[in-house]
Amino acid sequence: MDKLLNDLLGVVGSAGVLTGDDVTQRSVDWFTGAPCRAKAIIRPRSTEQLSQVMAICYEAGQPVVTHGGMTGIVHGGVASPEELVVSLELMNQIEEVDSVGATMQVQAGVTLQHVQEAAQAIDMQFPLDLGARGSCTIGGNIATNAGGIRVIRYGMMRQQVLGLEAVLSDGTVVSSLNKMLKNNAGYDLKQLFIGSEGTLGVVTRAVLRLQPHMPSEQTALVAVPSFDALTQLLNLVSRELANSLSAFEALWHNHYQLMTTESGKHAPLLADDSPFYAIIETLGVDEAQDAERFSQVLQRALEAELITDAVLASSHAQRSQIWAIREDIEVLVRELKPMFSYDVSLPIPHMNAYVEELERRLHSQWPDVGRLVVFGHLGDGNLHIMITVRDDSPDSRRQVEQLVYPPLEAFGGSVSAEHGIGLEKKPYLSVSRTAEEIALMQRLKVALDPKGLLNPGKVIAFE
Amino acid sequence: MDKLLNDLLGVVGSAGVLTGDDVTQRSVDWFTGAPCRAKAIIRPRSTEQLSQVMAICYEAGQPVVTHGGMTGIVHGGVASPEELVVSLELMNQIEEVDSVGATMQVQAGVTLQHVQEAAQAIDMQFPLDLGARGSCTIGGNIATNAGGIRVIRYGMMRQQVLGLEAVLSDGTVVSSLNKMLKNNAGYDLKQLFIGSEGTLGVVTRAVLRLQPHMPSEQTALVAVPSFDALTQLLNLVSRELANSLSAFEALWHNHYQLMTTESGKHAPLLADDSPFYAIIETLGVDEAQDAERFSQVLQRALEAELITDAVLASSHAQRSQIWAIREDIEVLVRELKPMFSYDVSLPIPHMNAYVEELERRLHSQWPDVGRLVVFGHLGDGNLHIMITVRDDSPDSRRQVEQLVYPPLEAFGGSVSAEHGIGLEKKPYLSVSRTAEEIALMQRLKVALDPKGLLNPGKVIAFE
Repeated sequence: MDKLLNDLLGVVGSAGVLTGDDVTQRSVDWFTGAPCRAKAIIRPRSTEQLSQVMAICYEAGQPVVTHGGMTGIVHGGVASPEELVVSLELMNQIEEVDSVGATMQVQAGVTLQHVQEAAQAIDMQFPLDLGARGSCTIGGNIATNAGGIRVIRYGMMRQQVLGLEAVLSDGTVVSSLNKMLKNNAGYDLKQLFIGSEGTLGVVTRAVLRLQPHMPSEQTALVAVPSFDALTQLLNLVSRELANSLSAFEALWHNHYQLMTTESGKHAPLLADDSPFYAIIETLGVDEAQDAERFSQVLQRALEAELITDAVLASSHAQRSQIWAIREDIEVLVRELKPMFSYDVSLPIPHMNAYVEELERRLHSQWPDVGRLVVFGHLGDGNLHIMITVRDDSPDSRRQVEQLVYPPLEAFGGSVSAEHGIGLEKKPYLSVSRTAEEIALMQRLKVALDPKGLLNPGKVIAFE
Repeated sequence: MDKLLNDLLGVVGSAGVLTGDDVTQRSVDWFTGAPCRAKAIIRPRSTEQLSQVMAICYEAGQPVVTHGGMTGIVHGGVASPEELVVSLELMNQIEEVDSVGATMQVQAGVTLQHVQEAAQAIDMQFPLDLGARGSCTIGGNIATNAGGIRVIRYGMMRQQVLGLEAVLSDGTVVSSLNKMLKNNAGYDLKQLFIGSEGTLGVVTRAVLRLQPHMPSEQTALVAVPSFDALTQLLNLVSRELANSLSAFEALWHNHYQLMTTESGKHAPLLADDSPFYAIIETLGVDEAQDAERFSQVLQRALEAELITDAVLASSHAQRSQIWAIREDIEVLVRELKPMFSYDVSLPIPHMNAYVEELERRLHSQWPDVGRLVVFGHLGDGNLHIMITVRDDSPDSRRQVEQLVYPPLEAFGGSVSAEHGIGLEKKPYLSVSRTAEEIALMQRLKVALDPKGLLNPGKVIAFE
């Protein structure tokens, strides 16, 4: 064992250092299962230990890649044999739950689901939610500014974080564990670490904002006759269900048909001949009032011909049936094999033109095998686009990326709505950000991580 | 006229440069009316002009203080005779309103009220609101991360900003005019400029998030028998009115009594013998449903003895009467003359102990003349504390500050909830922020403003 690992062993103990098979048996990509190639995985048990680990690495010029739950999909956690991984997995405690202040203080390695359950235990909720809830960690949610389906109501992870503690590349602990909704005492440093994918510091602890529990949930699947009707419907429900609207998910026909009649995996709750579908959800506290209002508003949408048909969930089972159509990613992975998955955002008024042009170009380039499936968080301007050309060679991948990313520029769109940049989207960052923006990002990177040791090569070049 | 001013004149034209009386007739402090002492006020008409202005100043090593509506109260806009003021007052256009995407793109010099009205014109709302709405500008709201009474529902200014354009000290234009709720393409640079009080860049334009218009407003003034009951009441209404609660303002007895029976300025809508009062407001879309639920919840609070009496506004006039008790600052300024005004935040469970100790120490130090009045945004952990010791000498001011600020440290409180730091609170920044946090702020300052030219001396020392 080299001197560096020996020094780190002195800080974290033998259970805190993994090497050999213990490293390679872990995957850095849940899509492909690619193994972790780092020279070791260091597992601190406290902020103090991590601070010492980072100071030692800084001294030695040792690059460090931080690992949370490893559920990201832009290769943000890839580590080379020259790099060390720091995993927060042993820092997984909930340190304090305050029902009066509606806050929870946690270590970064706690899972999202654990936090959600601890909030439920005091009859509150932690509103961030996504499919990987059982594995993904709060630290990872913060580092990637996670999104999910309820952003329209509660915002992204950034909005759920009141306070934060991070360790800088040289081991300095910057502790800003604020618990108040309002704190304008100097720069809001936590914003630096949220969404910067471990390139500016390692998040160790956080104070999260809790929200009241919402016992009443209304869910509908509706058929929508046109994109114009879809945006009008979004406007109608945004206005008429203003306080309670918690999800507005759009499914293009190509998605709905594949998930239901074509794959046979989910019951076609509505006929499969509509160009668009939407899942509309509200959260509230008064079941009777909410149900009445929800059906009134849908009735109005029907009368205004913004929807042609609707099914309202009348049970938990039916609600799950509706959401399964949206959330069953495995069907897509199987049916579109090999699949390229994209996560973009653009202003809602431009979405349809963008998708139509993308589809046209895909079919012109791959007339027989090109296939595209679109769904997403319409209210957030966020589309998920799944494409197959029945070939996943690097060349094909690059060609499809050329269809997906560059056209976003004209619409002021983003190459990453919620997944981050990592390694995967780094070549396309300039589609969404100007040279001046990227230069400023690099200036921040140099200021906070002058040796370029933190998650090297991810998000932006170190220059 | 010196060479620098001559060069700037070449960029902005003669109407763009104010000197002499045109400068000193302006005030940098609406409390005292203290005059602006800058050597000139430069008024660019576009981002391009401002960029050139900043590049010239950078070259010349000329410090620049940015002015918005000048309604701040921490002396963030004070300018010395060696400094230049850049005023955004001629950049006051609303550039685009998008009702489908629910966004508005504006120049920084537009007033908050103008933005609110433009949102109303398309049947939406811009939810940030504060007393200075007619004078304060969006650029100033962004630079100070303004708060106000609806933070509990909509968040601070930070949450209302989707995109932002700023000019750096060297004239570089960093344009991040994002329109989507979700955009994780690299670092979220706008966060640097929000709340940094003009010390890291000059905000020139912004994309604001609009919210649905809320036609139904419910307002009540309630009497609360104890602080414990007050926090339980906050929890009850947070839970039972979860989606619609838009304000929860607490008035200590000393505030309510002064505003009503003692000054005779406002009708005592409830008897003045209760230790606490609260103003509770909800915003919604269905008047009948909302009114029914609101009175049900207050009835429950009455039965649980969390409130002892209540008046529900049944008209716009009555609503205004209730809010006037909270918002009529002039009564305080007159009755507590000379008045020291504080804006702090601390975790809700510690508030009462903090205020009681402050009052005890104030009366022990100034047994005859010391007087304190407390009210604030309880749900945000934000208290406004008005104190008089009938003397505003620097010595007395410093002694009172010693009572107000240092005790916050033990509770993890903040010396500034929503007013910012400016010059006024700079000596107390270390009460709320650690040495490591302040060092990191300075690192950011040096990275973004290497010559220390932007709003010099405000918020933190340039080191």
